[in-house]
Amino acid sequence: MTEHTPPRHTVVIASGGLDSTTVAYWLAGSGSMLTLLSFDYGQRHRKELDFARRTAGRLGARYELVDLGRLDGLLSGSALTDPTVEVPDGTYTAESMRSTVVPNRNAIMLSIAVGAAVAAGADAVAFGAHAGDHAVYPDCRTEFFDAFAEAARFGNEGFIAEDFRLLAPFIAQTKADIVRVADQVGVPFTDTWSCYRGGALHCGTCGTCSERIEAFALAGVEDPTEYADATAGAAR
Amino acid sequence: MTEHTPPRHTVVIASGGLDSTTVAYWLAGSGSMLTLLSFDYGQRHRKELDFARRTAGRLGARYELVDLGRLDGLLSGSALTDPTVEVPDGTYTAESMRSTVVPNRNAIMLSIAVGAAVAAGADAVAFGAHAGDHAVYPDCRTEFFDAFAEAARFGNEGFIAEDFRLLAPFIAQTKADIVRVADQVGVPFTDTWSCYRGGALHCGTCGTCSERIEAFALAGVEDPTEYADATAGAAR
Repeated sequence: MTEHTPPRHTVVIASGGLDSTTVAYWLAGSGSMLTLLSFDYGQRHRKELDFARRTAGRLGARYELVDLGRLDGLLSGSALTDPTVEVPDGTYTAESMRSTVVPNRNAIMLSIAVGAAVAAGADAVAFGAHAGDHAVYPDCRTEFFDAFAEAARFGNEGFIAEDFRLLAPFIAQTKADIVRVADQVGVPFTDTWSCYRGGALHCGTCGTCSERIEAFALAGVEDPTEYADATAGAAR
Repeated sequence: MTEHTPPRHTVVIASGGLDSTTVAYWLAGSGSMLTLLSFDYGQRHRKELDFARRTAGRLGARYELVDLGRLDGLLSGSALTDPTVEVPDGTYTAESMRSTVVPNRNAIMLSIAVGAAVAAGADAVAFGAHAGDHAVYPDCRTEFFDAFAEAARFGNEGFIAEDFRLLAPFIAQTKADIVRVADQVGVPFTDTWSCYRGGALHCGTCGTCSERIEAFALAGVEDPTEYADATAGAAR
């Protein structure tokens, strides 16, 4: 969160999760106009996308859903898109996070977001990557974002806003930091969805649920999430 | 064409046109295994994609078609995707080429191609951009490809081939140079499609047809293309 002048219009990559929803509320609070852009890349459930749309409604933002579902065959092998791969339970380890990697996913989403920004005359694209993602997701690291932003500026010279920025405000922060910021900027936590399983409630045991529970605990912010596994809260 | 060791397996972005078909034949001749990847991004006609599939068949390559048609609304404003914009006639000028720009199109296609390369264990992605594209398409310039290749390597560290390369063998060459190379490596010219209009024959008058006619003339290679406008050949 080191940007001083807020963008005029930001295309936010919105998954419906805690990180990107917090980015959206933080930018809305700074006065930026918003377009929320979600991607359906053949996730096993699409529930999180309903949450992204709800956030767009609450913030008065334009909402666009891009269907990348047909990339399944090309980019197969991930737990997120391949129903033959088991969802890993418990706290993320390097190994279990690896099984959730969709090859080059962030570059694909960011390229489309940059195209949408050029078409809409927006001067920023924002993305919710955070420090906890770095170890296993190489496309959540600063050097990737820097190289990608340079490619976006070169590749759209004359068409893109001259002061175009790629914002990853949480790139050096932890998930607990994000919960604290979310609390400050008034994110309605029950409008965010983390669980990899798409049940009626957050399961409380999968990798993303474990991470969510831990982040609230570390941030010292009350977690209003209702978890299907009642022991999930007690485990804190 | 400055690469000395041929790649083991290359994902070639294949439009069915002269440039990318020549890239495919050139790489096949060097001994690289090939995957041909085409994109349907809501072009007004899909005829060129049939030509890309035909080339894959002739070269014994895997063929994949990625449907990006639903990006229309997001990336509108281009003559290629918006039926309300007229196809410019005659030789390309900066202004008429501008109307054929799809925002960030090459980055979108390249990102998906890199993801496919990671998934398939391929060590290269190849693209048919040439010097004639540079003036108006900023995403056909060396500085874009260099920044993009760096982003691809950073963004897929640990997953992508260590010697991964983004190949744009014609980046410093003209369309006439490509015709000469095509002639040398045995591209069946009638298996390539250039015309922006999707008629039974090449129209002979649109920007890409004019460029094709001129390239053959400058290369001193006989043009076997049958043009609908009989004066097109005579204009050479």
